[in-house]
Amino acid sequence: MAEAAAGDRRVPDLDAVILAGGSGARFWPLSRELTPKQLLSVFGGETLILKAVRRIAPLTGSGHVFVATGERLVDDLRAHLASRPETAGLDIGYLVEPVARNTAPAAALAAAFLAARDPRAIMAMLPSDHLLDDGPEWEATIRAAAALARDGYLVTVGLRPTSPETGYGYIRTGEPIAGQAAGGVIGCRAAAFVEKPDRASAERFLAAGDHLWNSGILVAGAARFLEELESAGEDGRRIVSVAREIAAEPPEMWRESAARERFASLPSVSVDVAVLEVSDRVAVVPSSMDWSDVGSLLAVERLGTPDAGGNTLVGRAVDVDSSGCLVYSPDRLVATLGLRDAIVVDTLDATLVADRSRAQDVRLVVEALKAAGHAEAVSSRTAARPWGEWTLLMKLDGFQVKSISVDPGRRLSLQSHARRSEHWVVVEGEALVRRGTEDLTVRANESVHIPVGTLHRLENPGPGPLRVIEVAVGDYLEEDDIVRHEDDWGREGGDR
Amino acid sequence: MAEAAAGDRRVPDLDAVILAGGSGARFWPLSRELTPKQLLSVFGGETLILKAVRRIAPLTGSGHVFVATGERLVDDLRAHLASRPETAGLDIGYLVEPVARNTAPAAALAAAFLAARDPRAIMAMLPSDHLLDDGPEWEATIRAAAALARDGYLVTVGLRPTSPETGYGYIRTGEPIAGQAAGGVIGCRAAAFVEKPDRASAERFLAAGDHLWNSGILVAGAARFLEELESAGEDGRRIVSVAREIAAEPPEMWRESAARERFASLPSVSVDVAVLEVSDRVAVVPSSMDWSDVGSLLAVERLGTPDAGGNTLVGRAVDVDSSGCLVYSPDRLVATLGLRDAIVVDTLDATLVADRSRAQDVRLVVEALKAAGHAEAVSSRTAARPWGEWTLLMKLDGFQVKSISVDPGRRLSLQSHARRSEHWVVVEGEALVRRGTEDLTVRANESVHIPVGTLHRLENPGPGPLRVIEVAVGDYLEEDDIVRHEDDWGREGGDR
Repeated sequence: MAEAAAGDRRVPDLDAVILAGGSGARFWPLSRELTPKQLLSVFGGETLILKAVRRIAPLTGSGHVFVATGERLVDDLRAHLASRPETAGLDIGYLVEPVARNTAPAAALAAAFLAARDPRAIMAMLPSDHLLDDGPEWEATIRAAAALARDGYLVTVGLRPTSPETGYGYIRTGEPIAGQAAGGVIGCRAAAFVEKPDRASAERFLAAGDHLWNSGILVAGAARFLEELESAGEDGRRIVSVAREIAAEPPEMWRESAARERFASLPSVSVDVAVLEVSDRVAVVPSSMDWSDVGSLLAVERLGTPDAGGNTLVGRAVDVDSSGCLVYSPDRLVATLGLRDAIVVDTLDATLVADRSRAQDVRLVVEALKAAGHAEAVSSRTAARPWGEWTLLMKLDGFQVKSISVDPGRRLSLQSHARRSEHWVVVEGEALVRRGTEDLTVRANESVHIPVGTLHRLENPGPGPLRVIEVAVGDYLEEDDIVRHEDDWGREGGDR
Repeated sequence: MAEAAAGDRRVPDLDAVILAGGSGARFWPLSRELTPKQLLSVFGGETLILKAVRRIAPLTGSGHVFVATGERLVDDLRAHLASRPETAGLDIGYLVEPVARNTAPAAALAAAFLAARDPRAIMAMLPSDHLLDDGPEWEATIRAAAALARDGYLVTVGLRPTSPETGYGYIRTGEPIAGQAAGGVIGCRAAAFVEKPDRASAERFLAAGDHLWNSGILVAGAARFLEELESAGEDGRRIVSVAREIAAEPPEMWRESAARERFASLPSVSVDVAVLEVSDRVAVVPSSMDWSDVGSLLAVERLGTPDAGGNTLVGRAVDVDSSGCLVYSPDRLVATLGLRDAIVVDTLDATLVADRSRAQDVRLVVEALKAAGHAEAVSSRTAARPWGEWTLLMKLDGFQVKSISVDPGRRLSLQSHARRSEHWVVVEGEALVRRGTEDLTVRANESVHIPVGTLHRLENPGPGPLRVIEVAVGDYLEEDDIVRHEDDWGREGGDR
């Protein structure tokens, strides 16, 4: 569907670079290092990265969407987008940063890559972890930004505030840019960038109407962006020089040690500081579309409706006498009693309880968890996979138990393990199991044993769901004990 | 060991009635309706009921310990005490109340039963859900109380306060009772009973030293208690009359409908109100033994040591910037951030987060859970059994997964199910499995299938642990789909 419509709606020369390198620290325990925000489907059952790609792809067309991320996440992102019907047909490029750096080096590398492909390329740099509507206003905003970019502006997108938020950055609007009303949207000069203001300032901004929320979206000619960054000072010159060198090689080479070293030597500086706050060619396109940066766990409050005490309870939560609380607990039972202004976010293996005023400091918890060596900072008990998902039910020395759901028509990789046997009990649906040279049909209430070392594959050939309980027994149970002999999503590392 | 020592330490004519009918509401989510406080082993790995029996049995001897409880719990209590080596050899009686009523009818029924067995019987009524040391002071206290009881007093036990507790009842001490120094303990008249006082009163009590915490322990001649209750007024007379009628029949008959009806018609009144607060023959034995009524979840605070912020973290808890909090989480990870004076108590299937000042109101949460139909109010995911324990790992329509641990030398009942099949995968140890007429040895990393309707039994014949993962598949999975053909603990209802 996205492709069919793309022909009509495409914006000339537009390339999207979706930033998907997030660390998952601000949204813990919902996000983890290995399943950061962009891979969560908390909001409406679709991951944020999928929403981001679906939103921009009709405006760029296939072959013009790039996902910028790190080595840690690229396999999961590629397999995820390849497995979803909405994006499976799209030609998506993956730009893997040599090492994690701040946004200015990352943007410069993407711009250098795009400019080398097409000197006229307009780069739309888009966060992957925001929520925004994708209706007509979204399209009008991007068209207007692209038009201004074509005229040489570095274009930001500003949202008209609806409340005195202190957690967002703001852009002060300057004079309108003459002749630039595209689709009824009038761009302005960006007069100043204001980082998270205090409450009084935020209220003044809201009342005056001359400040917009900074969406983090940047639209600019790729070559133009590099010029502007180069002319912003010595840091900018170094960044652009290294970015051009690395981008001269294909993205597969960016992870080589020479590229890594050069990239790691660049100053850690944001796009805002490196260029937007110093350039006099920065514009802002105002927009009223519904937007949220999902910047803290408080974003899940939008999934419920406050009760009389001002508590928002989402999922299996029961409250007595609390006020101003947010409780999110989709699976387990959470009961609250007499709390004031607290946040409780519950997952299968970890629960966070925080004072509401500390929602922005959840990364401190993640740092403490990492320092104490808790695996819950890194991974969760449930993992989405291109073929379905698994949930770890129990793990002790010598064995572990998982529930594995395989989507209709999907199969896991053809694999073997050196140090564990697996017992599969089918509890729903019908499985096609390759075991060594046999092909077995295993129905609900039947089981099969995969001895250690045996080549095997689990497949759901049917039109309905398949669920298998797997009991793995062995002296080493980590996910890296796997040899993939064949995989529908070209995966090598990771599990399954 | 308890039996060997009992001969030396026995107190003449002493019968213990351990009150074990609690509902589990104040200690949720650690306790549940089906696993109330007395069946928890949170404190020191031993259940509170086991501690209570072990504490008093050396002073009464075998055949003089009675557990008073309701029909709902009696099977579990009996199987639990029969399965523990510390109490397996004791002859313990079970007094099942016809219906749940307040403490005065329950105490009268127990007293009538004991007085009919032996007119000289001294009844020690003991809560089952308290923590107290069982050293020399415990024994001296009970001996002194029994001596006073023999002289016709109704004897309470009062603990010397160590802090201005507002959650306890207090007893004001009157003049010493002449000639009653037994083992260095001097009994006093009980001058007044004071229910939970305000903070100022509690501080005054502590400073003056003339008030003791009411332990809830009552020692009295059984016949004497009935006389005193009879002479306390019309309510007391009715209670004693019905108690004597019911106690004329053996305890197995107390659950018959006639007894139920008569018992249910009695006024719901506590021992304190019905007799202790009106009688002039009430004494109190002061004691300095370490004691706690485990009256609220705050009791688990004693399992840890406060950090610099005054937080007590027990188990897998990580805190950033909180103060005055109690976090108890033995299995799952709980992180707290910037909380003040909160309690977080976590279990496998449910979490409670409460303001510390509301610890006494946890029953309100249980009421709310019941009103909303949440099963977590009634049962938990883990259940101790006389043969070991099980944990429910997952349950959905059509199947469930359990981890089952069987203690060395123990076995489940010989049983069958009409509507579910079971797949057992042994993950640790070696199982002896009866399946129909077969006896199978199933080793770690082997599995066995029990088809629907098949007679079966799981046994751990070895000296080490046995753990089995059970996947049950069927259209009905409740615990009441079981036929017990043979059971080592004489159980009929319940599960396994």
